[in-house]
Amino acid sequence: MSINKDAHGGNVYNAGSQYNLDINEILDYSANINPLGVPQTLQQAIINNFDLLTHYPDPDYMNARRSLANWHGIEKSNIIMGNGATEIIFLLMEVFKPRKILIPCPSFSEYEQAAITAGCKVEHYRIKEEEDFIINVQDLINNIHKEIEMLILCNPNNPTSQIIKKDKMKEILSFCRENGITVVIDEAFIDFTDEQLHLSMVDQLEIYPNLFIIKALTKFFAIPGLRLGYGIAGERFIKRMEHKKQPWTLNNFASMAAEILPHDVEYIRVSSQWIKEEGVRFFQLLSKIEGIKVFKPSSNFILIKLLDPHLTSGILCDKMMGNGILIRNAENFTFLDKQYIRIAIKDGRSNDIFIQRLKQTLMEGKQHELYT
Amino acid sequence: MSINKDAHGGNVYNAGSQYNLDINEILDYSANINPLGVPQTLQQAIINNFDLLTHYPDPDYMNARRSLANWHGIEKSNIIMGNGATEIIFLLMEVFKPRKILIPCPSFSEYEQAAITAGCKVEHYRIKEEEDFIINVQDLINNIHKEIEMLILCNPNNPTSQIIKKDKMKEILSFCRENGITVVIDEAFIDFTDEQLHLSMVDQLEIYPNLFIIKALTKFFAIPGLRLGYGIAGERFIKRMEHKKQPWTLNNFASMAAEILPHDVEYIRVSSQWIKEEGVRFFQLLSKIEGIKVFKPSSNFILIKLLDPHLTSGILCDKMMGNGILIRNAENFTFLDKQYIRIAIKDGRSNDIFIQRLKQTLMEGKQHELYT
Repeated sequence: MSINKDAHGGNVYNAGSQYNLDINEILDYSANINPLGVPQTLQQAIINNFDLLTHYPDPDYMNARRSLANWHGIEKSNIIMGNGATEIIFLLMEVFKPRKILIPCPSFSEYEQAAITAGCKVEHYRIKEEEDFIINVQDLINNIHKEIEMLILCNPNNPTSQIIKKDKMKEILSFCRENGITVVIDEAFIDFTDEQLHLSMVDQLEIYPNLFIIKALTKFFAIPGLRLGYGIAGERFIKRMEHKKQPWTLNNFASMAAEILPHDVEYIRVSSQWIKEEGVRFFQLLSKIEGIKVFKPSSNFILIKLLDPHLTSGILCDKMMGNGILIRNAENFTFLDKQYIRIAIKDGRSNDIFIQRLKQTLMEGKQHELYT
Repeated sequence: MSINKDAHGGNVYNAGSQYNLDINEILDYSANINPLGVPQTLQQAIINNFDLLTHYPDPDYMNARRSLANWHGIEKSNIIMGNGATEIIFLLMEVFKPRKILIPCPSFSEYEQAAITAGCKVEHYRIKEEEDFIINVQDLINNIHKEIEMLILCNPNNPTSQIIKKDKMKEILSFCRENGITVVIDEAFIDFTDEQLHLSMVDQLEIYPNLFIIKALTKFFAIPGLRLGYGIAGERFIKRMEHKKQPWTLNNFASMAAEILPHDVEYIRVSSQWIKEEGVRFFQLLSKIEGIKVFKPSSNFILIKLLDPHLTSGILCDKMMGNGILIRNAENFTFLDKQYIRIAIKDGRSNDIFIQRLKQTLMEGKQHELYT
């Protein structure tokens, strides 16, 4: 495996050392993390429970799984805990070793890396820019042929920030169930979507035994440094994976977080409010900027296309970093190129700074013909 | 892989729920953790750095590796970080896939599990009770035949608490170097040994390119729940492993701990003083108890043989747990049986309680002929 060290964004550590900035001085628009920061409830629980660290983790993570099961209205036997979603993704490929995987792209690169590491073949389905990167579900189904044993869908998808609606997802799941194909749905960003849409497929577990859902609390609760992911599936799936899993991969603060965070209704409420309001406002401001095409987001990040052929994503990222703003150069996503960047939606104040610096950078470039 | 969930001790969570005790009410003699608890310096650093959690980990763990490299007097290119020693052990087997491994036993079971998971064959060398479980190095060397590609040595060894001295270790390393055999030395408990012995082989890295050392800060600094291990070897070894390693396996508090703890000289000093004094005192008290044979420890845990043939380790563990004390039934270590238990060395007050309850349990059993 050759690790894509930028899979989650532009690597704030590299950027910091390259531009001689402390990581706290950087406005990080490359990682899609809730700007509300680490929940106070979790901070207080850590302070009150340092002694937890003196014990090895519970190898069965009973309390964490019970809490998440209650939250999702499922059984704890439907849950496997992971050291970030990464562990679940790699374990999934290693255990099931599907011969061929279909991944609609552009999408999160870790699935492909994990598949290749496990010796699986990968086929890409092209999500069309001319359809604003919204997956045409019937066309996708038409492209699932009999060699495909697993389909990967990120919902919302990264980096496009587009969703597949529930009824459409059911069509895919039904087709795949009838054809013996496992469908992996990555819902890592689903808590940022409009709750009216009820996108999550967790309530469909009994109807679709071919369904495997990957979750993470780390984006919505702003704790990617704590490492906390999990998989949801039928008991048979989970048991096969448990059997191959390394023990004690989740640290005790992460498993405690799984117990606490689903109950932090205030943090959830404020965050939902923020993404609803600031997401719309930021998108509208961005849409008014000349020289870029902004794809309307359904999550907490936005895909942008640079329309000036002389301006590459690499140049723009470099210029923005010179102004202390780290953005995600999206050129290495399959089917994207040097015209694409991805940015997070942050708090209003940061977003205003972002807008101002982006405008300035685009303007200066034009004036000085720096783009060539 | 069938995980041995008791590999690190008797699983305080199971015991707690079985005997209806809160885990904080249990005197845990089954896990070999420094009783001084989580260092104050680390607690304070966590409180001051909650924001660290909002970033993904540095995929290269530069600061953590630099700190450990300085501590050990090596280069950071000689270090690979792991989510506990467990990740390093499994990765080591997966990457090198030695055809046959020799493990002197009884020893820590995780190496065998990892080897089997990776499809390697395992051979055991019997460490002799009649030699007080001290490895006869010449005899061990005589038993290394040409099919062996890797030798595993825990120094100190778990559960025997016995060591291999440095000059003897060099003999083994030289023999193995000449015969193309990799030697893995697990030094997870080495900080509890007499510092005058200078047992660590970290300073021998350049002389023995066949050397791979596994380290953990979690026992000495009492943070097994944080998950923090690392491997030390020549750059070529490390590079091959980095290539196969999953990204972001270490959480940000663990990597911060690797930066802070080597500088906590006061914690290190007090801990060394404790093990030197309390280790001797506890051993002497235990040695006076009739009906058990106590093997003189070189680390922070003690192997004990029950001499009454009617008293099994299972019965004793059960009786002790009834008194709120969890001990490690050592019967499932290769070459041990129902006569063996392993206990940690804890603080003086706890050790006095332990002595008193052990005596009482042995006495009661004799009086009531409970052992049959």
